[in-house]
Amino acid sequence: MLIVQKFGGSSVADAARISRVAAIIGEAYRAGNQVVVVLSAQGDTTDDLIAKAREINPKPDKREMDMLLSVGEQISVSLMAMELQKHRIPAVSLCGWQIGLTTTGSHTAGRIETIDTGRILRELESEKVVLIAGFQGIDHAGDITTLGRGGSDTTAVAVAAVLHADRCQIFTDVEGVFTADPRKVPGARLLKSITYDEMLELASSGSQVLHNRSVELAKQYGVVLEVLSSFLQRPGTKVQEATRDVERMIISGVAKDDHIARVTVGRVPDRPGAALKLFQVLSDNSVNVDNICQSASGSGRSDIGFTVAEDDADTARTLLQKARPEVGYEALSVTRDVSKVSIVGAGLLASPGMAVRMFEALTEENINISMISSSEIKLSVVIPKSDADRAVAAIHGKFFGTGERLTLPGTRIRKGERENAGL
Amino acid sequence: MLIVQKFGGSSVADAARISRVAAIIGEAYRAGNQVVVVLSAQGDTTDDLIAKAREINPKPDKREMDMLLSVGEQISVSLMAMELQKHRIPAVSLCGWQIGLTTTGSHTAGRIETIDTGRILRELESEKVVLIAGFQGIDHAGDITTLGRGGSDTTAVAVAAVLHADRCQIFTDVEGVFTADPRKVPGARLLKSITYDEMLELASSGSQVLHNRSVELAKQYGVVLEVLSSFLQRPGTKVQEATRDVERMIISGVAKDDHIARVTVGRVPDRPGAALKLFQVLSDNSVNVDNICQSASGSGRSDIGFTVAEDDADTARTLLQKARPEVGYEALSVTRDVSKVSIVGAGLLASPGMAVRMFEALTEENINISMISSSEIKLSVVIPKSDADRAVAAIHGKFFGTGERLTLPGTRIRKGERENAGL
Repeated sequence: MLIVQKFGGSSVADAARISRVAAIIGEAYRAGNQVVVVLSAQGDTTDDLIAKAREINPKPDKREMDMLLSVGEQISVSLMAMELQKHRIPAVSLCGWQIGLTTTGSHTAGRIETIDTGRILRELESEKVVLIAGFQGIDHAGDITTLGRGGSDTTAVAVAAVLHADRCQIFTDVEGVFTADPRKVPGARLLKSITYDEMLELASSGSQVLHNRSVELAKQYGVVLEVLSSFLQRPGTKVQEATRDVERMIISGVAKDDHIARVTVGRVPDRPGAALKLFQVLSDNSVNVDNICQSASGSGRSDIGFTVAEDDADTARTLLQKARPEVGYEALSVTRDVSKVSIVGAGLLASPGMAVRMFEALTEENINISMISSSEIKLSVVIPKSDADRAVAAIHGKFFGTGERLTLPGTRIRKGERENAGL
Repeated sequence: MLIVQKFGGSSVADAARISRVAAIIGEAYRAGNQVVVVLSAQGDTTDDLIAKAREINPKPDKREMDMLLSVGEQISVSLMAMELQKHRIPAVSLCGWQIGLTTTGSHTAGRIETIDTGRILRELESEKVVLIAGFQGIDHAGDITTLGRGGSDTTAVAVAAVLHADRCQIFTDVEGVFTADPRKVPGARLLKSITYDEMLELASSGSQVLHNRSVELAKQYGVVLEVLSSFLQRPGTKVQEATRDVERMIISGVAKDDHIARVTVGRVPDRPGAALKLFQVLSDNSVNVDNICQSASGSGRSDIGFTVAEDDADTARTLLQKARPEVGYEALSVTRDVSKVSIVGAGLLASPGMAVRMFEALTEENINISMISSSEIKLSVVIPKSDADRAVAAIHGKFFGTGERLTLPGTRIRKGERENAGL
């Protein structure tokens, strides 16, 4: 079997962790598999390099940042090769340019275009573990580029795709994909499998186990991903096309995104092109807009609300203020004290009862909803940031039960009493 | 003018020093020159990386060491580009593989084979300062290689040679090449110029201002080197072919090498091939031998003495013990408590009086000589290590006068008295 494994920065942070990861790689290799490993930079290396750069130049050139930051992954792969060789496992480390990983797009945000499998296949044929520096490639000018956030995941998926790998395992510091953030929601359950689309919606709703670009690429090339822990030896979550699993839950998870801002543009004229102009000016300046919601007032004007990433809030405000004469709106408000809470599930659209249960949970907790938006497989509400954790717990409890009641002895009895009382 | 400048690790150790070096580069650039800069890894970076590697694997693979260590220079050049850009000087950093610097030979000790000037010339034409990561290249398999000790000097010389640069400036933490180590010999004088051969002999005698390979390459391609300080704005020392300088001194310097061991193989049979076998076994195992000296006793056997690098002393002893049955010698001694002191000068062979003056100095100091060897431009003696500093000072005083007497008022008078007395 040809297996691609990816380990993140915290998994290779020091010599002890490198040794543990080498054991996982070694196990796969000794079982007779061909193993290709993609690594991120060690723990704080990238942050340390960024600090070095900023000390010298607060606005460093992006080409030079790529030149600088790409060394992080190069260090990881060479150290891992040494660790494997110590255990008599033949291994070879390769940079992005050594596997002909070319990118398009700008520096610090390259997109993978091609990978030359020649070198990788030669090394696999000579029975070596191939260690590939994630996150990096070269552009057509022969300059080093990086792939931006989640770049090592994307490298792993792309490598798995071009090699037609049998498995693509993404090792992380969590056990897999959960129905909600397990650090905050005690009853959160590990999902055995999830579809690409659900994973995309969960990721864009703040559950950053995998970066969206890697999931999109996996979907595009049909690469089945397995998200699992590098610390525990347990099966994780499979990300793949929908399967006919009779036990599949309609809802696969509850997610929260605190890093948003709500924008309301008040009393926009109901004439063709006004809304278009509004979103065009944002799009032209790379401000992504989500959860658009327009309410016609019948007075010839309507309010248009949407959310943007919190980091883009100020830019959005400035751009919209500039566009005011042309768009002709009357009021503008930008609020940061909101969160987005979403339920995600492939069967959502076919089960209108799901929305009702979500709103029930929020009503019971007396949480006010300021926006609602939905897609085929996601239903999101924008609520006050201070209510967000409570909202996630309540919604999760509605769909999956509450872990607290099952694990705390005192409440278990109470639950039994209630059940006896027919509640 | 096309200028190649090289700065060592201590010159780029931190942000403040990078800033100072950028000022030197900027001055050359703003004066209208095309500037190519070769940099070493920052201060302790290489040592830190070696420590990281050894923590994981005490005997790391050399290919992987090259992969790991080459990041040091990559960090330096990208940071320097950022610093120059801050001062509005356009700059671009390039790795060894990006200038097609191919090497032959083994990992960690590659030798430069070719450099592709295309990319460098394109960047120079677009008026950029070109920053090249020293010490590194790629081999024919496309793997990263390093050039071993002094590799950044060698890179600079090779780049200057292929670009037909007008000047090749090697910036160091010393002012240039001195007649003796200025930290130890107060009267040491800065040389305005020195020939390639003299520089080679000084370097191999322990004055490691420039590594021999870089000087050899400069000699081969006629690249005039200028060794100068990155901390002081002063002319340094030119390394070039012999010039007709009437003021040229016959002796250009006194050097000392403490890191040697003296090997004496006693009573080797005077038969063909015995000495050959002796040196072959050392050469086959990469033990370099210097100052060979054989004294025939007339008894059919003779003693053969030579020096090796201190690090090779144990290896040499083991190899020679193994070879004893075949060579048939009777005694073996390896001593580390010796130093080699040498005088170097292009006119040495033509001036036998020089040797006499050297021996006079040693006799006056009552220093015992255990070996003598000479080449066209060098005369070396092996003496007890504890006498070495005193020997250098005495010999230097004989040839160049003693700085103490010239700078201390008390002694200046005494000197005058002597002169008056006809001494």
